[in-house]
Amino acid sequence: MPETSPVELLRTYVDVLEARDWPALTSLLHEDVVYRLPQTREVVRGRDDYLRWNTDYPDVWHLRLVEAYGDRTGAAARLSVRIDGEPHPVDALVFVKAADGRLVEITDWWPEAYDPPPGREHLATRE
Amino acid sequence: MPETSPVELLRTYVDVLEARDWPALTSLLHEDVVYRLPQTREVVRGRDDYLRWNTDYPDVWHLRLVEAYGDRTGAAARLSVRIDGEPHPVDALVFVKAADGRLVEITDWWPEAYDPPPGREHLATRE
Repeated sequence: MPETSPVELLRTYVDVLEARDWPALTSLLHEDVVYRLPQTREVVRGRDDYLRWNTDYPDVWHLRLVEAYGDRTGAAARLSVRIDGEPHPVDALVFVKAADGRLVEITDWWPEAYDPPPGREHLATRE
Repeated sequence: MPETSPVELLRTYVDVLEARDWPALTSLLHEDVVYRLPQTREVVRGRDDYLRWNTDYPDVWHLRLVEAYGDRTGAAARLSVRIDGEPHPVDALVFVKAADGRLVEITDWWPEAYDPPPGREHLATRE
């Protein structure tokens, strides 16, 4: 049986996170998975600690996959998110790497909304 | 001759942006390309206006592709960036859609660094 592709692993990962299906999440994760949030430089190493990150996370989040792409080594997705019942104004992005048919690197960005810097008002409109 | 795949279009797009090769950039863009920055809600519509966004952009940026993934409809990439000579602390993300062998949607996120919110100190380390 061929290994599950990284983009399929990523789609299933979003589904099981949204379902809070911790046994299914465990089965997707490599024992040595590393989770990173580059904006805060937080890092969580290993399957047990990354499960705890999710089970003990202080906010209530909901995820909906908007689009996802992958190749044989990794994948990337864009997620529409809600935090504590409110739509987050900007989508989140997640990039993963797979090894042995499991997720071995997971990197999340949760970009914030901000006002455009001055100097480019003449180049764009706002929606 | 098969159409250039979206991920190859995206890789070339990063190369020609970095090279400031405006004729080559023009050839990659659909006439009706739409460029979006979801964090600021800025939008630029059409090839001419998107070229102008790049030629007239007020800062000096440099881009290096870290990883990219795609399928037959679109692609996503992670970029290491420098602005006005300084490394940006967080990578940028770009997702594209292609039509007729050209880029028809380009969406950029430039996430900012921030301190972790309280309540999850026990769940991660920082690097």
